[in-house]
Amino acid sequence: MTVLAVTIGDPAGIGPEVTEKAIASLPPGVGIVIVGPENIVSPMATRLRKRAHVTPAFEGVVGKASAASGRSALDTLAAGIALCKSGQADALVTAPISKHALALAGSADRGHTEILTREMGTGPTAMAFFSPQLRTVLATVHVPLAQAIRQLTSARIVEVARLFSASLRVQLGIVRPNLALAALNPHAGEDGLLGDDEQRILAPAVVDAQAVGVRLSGPYPADTLFRRAVDGEFDGVVALYHDQALIPVKLLGFGDAVNVTLGLTHPRTSPDHGTAYDIAGQDTARPTGMLSALRLAAELCAKRPSTARDPA
Amino acid sequence: MTVLAVTIGDPAGIGPEVTEKAIASLPPGVGIVIVGPENIVSPMATRLRKRAHVTPAFEGVVGKASAASGRSALDTLAAGIALCKSGQADALVTAPISKHALALAGSADRGHTEILTREMGTGPTAMAFFSPQLRTVLATVHVPLAQAIRQLTSARIVEVARLFSASLRVQLGIVRPNLALAALNPHAGEDGLLGDDEQRILAPAVVDAQAVGVRLSGPYPADTLFRRAVDGEFDGVVALYHDQALIPVKLLGFGDAVNVTLGLTHPRTSPDHGTAYDIAGQDTARPTGMLSALRLAAELCAKRPSTARDPA
Repeated sequence: MTVLAVTIGDPAGIGPEVTEKAIASLPPGVGIVIVGPENIVSPMATRLRKRAHVTPAFEGVVGKASAASGRSALDTLAAGIALCKSGQADALVTAPISKHALALAGSADRGHTEILTREMGTGPTAMAFFSPQLRTVLATVHVPLAQAIRQLTSARIVEVARLFSASLRVQLGIVRPNLALAALNPHAGEDGLLGDDEQRILAPAVVDAQAVGVRLSGPYPADTLFRRAVDGEFDGVVALYHDQALIPVKLLGFGDAVNVTLGLTHPRTSPDHGTAYDIAGQDTARPTGMLSALRLAAELCAKRPSTARDPA
Repeated sequence: MTVLAVTIGDPAGIGPEVTEKAIASLPPGVGIVIVGPENIVSPMATRLRKRAHVTPAFEGVVGKASAASGRSALDTLAAGIALCKSGQADALVTAPISKHALALAGSADRGHTEILTREMGTGPTAMAFFSPQLRTVLATVHVPLAQAIRQLTSARIVEVARLFSASLRVQLGIVRPNLALAALNPHAGEDGLLGDDEQRILAPAVVDAQAVGVRLSGPYPADTLFRRAVDGEFDGVVALYHDQALIPVKLLGFGDAVNVTLGLTHPRTSPDHGTAYDIAGQDTARPTGMLSALRLAAELCAKRPSTARDPA
């Protein structure tokens, strides 16, 4: 049976409650190890009849970022990573953590992706979003848009297209994933009239990707491409900047899109929302995103044999 | 009764056929004058029992851009503009023309908007898209993305927000249009960490717009803003660049979105597609876009008294 290590994230945010609600809604057939501070996770695991893997108790305040909440989130993530590394879990599902809390705890890391890339990376990594209607990977992420444009290279596009293709093939069982590259400029640059990035960077990236066996085509005008992908013409879209990918993802539906990190030793998913300190502890947070993340993580494992040993 | 001047656009493209099909599907109650070359438009008007306003016959080939098709498109547009100027039409609906054909005909103009701004502009103009689910106006249009970013100014944003607000108020009867400004950078720049355009240009534009009585707020992270607007939180979105507006517009549905030019003496709409020479003359083109453009033009006139005189 597939085993998911599920971290509750920042204990001062909505992570604990969405984790509990989502696991309670999950159909049987998936093994779960809940990871987090002992005083939160032990009773939760008892209520849910799941296994717990505990870290030191969290004694801080709920509803705001603190050094204690940041420290706890880091301990929890390290424990979740260790479960994967030791073969006790097949995949990692992470509830939200806060960049601000990490900083208060004295960490130089800004989020999950940096830590996961260092601890579980097999080389370069990439951020992708998978929803029932659309899958997309980002060539650039959290940088100003002007800088994202300057950062674009053919090599990076080939890299994320390779990671994306491998994920769809190995983790989702799609035989020869049919990927499309989004253009940067209006009308895909209109033969150079509206920008030459398509000719200088994007078209060569498509040639290079094909040369290494990745089925990538384009660049296509971005305004119609996402509609075409949703309609089934492509298995996924390689997007160039944050909002190019996230506008369609979030327009199609909050909560259904799952953040997937590509290029790690194990599948890793997380919901598409933050710690939401303002509503934490009130039992009002909806678990839709966390439930989608759990389901997708199980699906990403289903195409390969479980390597998880039964945890002692 | 409201009267629409409807130009068939480039006679070598799908303009004539989508115009005829769309007018045939239009419910009664809207006056129509079909504008275009005599040998195409006279028989069409007879079949549809509508009025015709004719230009010289088109003798060129259907299915490709030519000097003749470009010349005819220009003549037709000039005739449509004249109908509005002389008070014989309340609004203008234009079927597609081709930039390439205009160039072959020796015109320096690149499309409808340039010509309309010159001939019917009351000052600055802006391109907007109205669909049943989303209305959005663009601060920059057909330029490379890097250049669009450099072109952004507070003054231009205030200008398009004013035009947009006036259109929604006067043409659609929305009392105090509630507009939202999209951010440029991921997470709306995250307090300057991911770009300072929000602080330097966008936030001041919101203040300036409010100072002149425009109800504009933001800048909001673009990835969630379009979802919020579709869910009814705002009457319209001020977008900063072509694909930021067009990705959501086209994802929500081809054919339903209508291109609206703001800042002209008369309402002007057009479908959201091109001449499609490759399928012209085969009677396969769908008139959805043209029909939406006709309906919206009639709606944009409905809130103000018709000024059209009965054409002789």
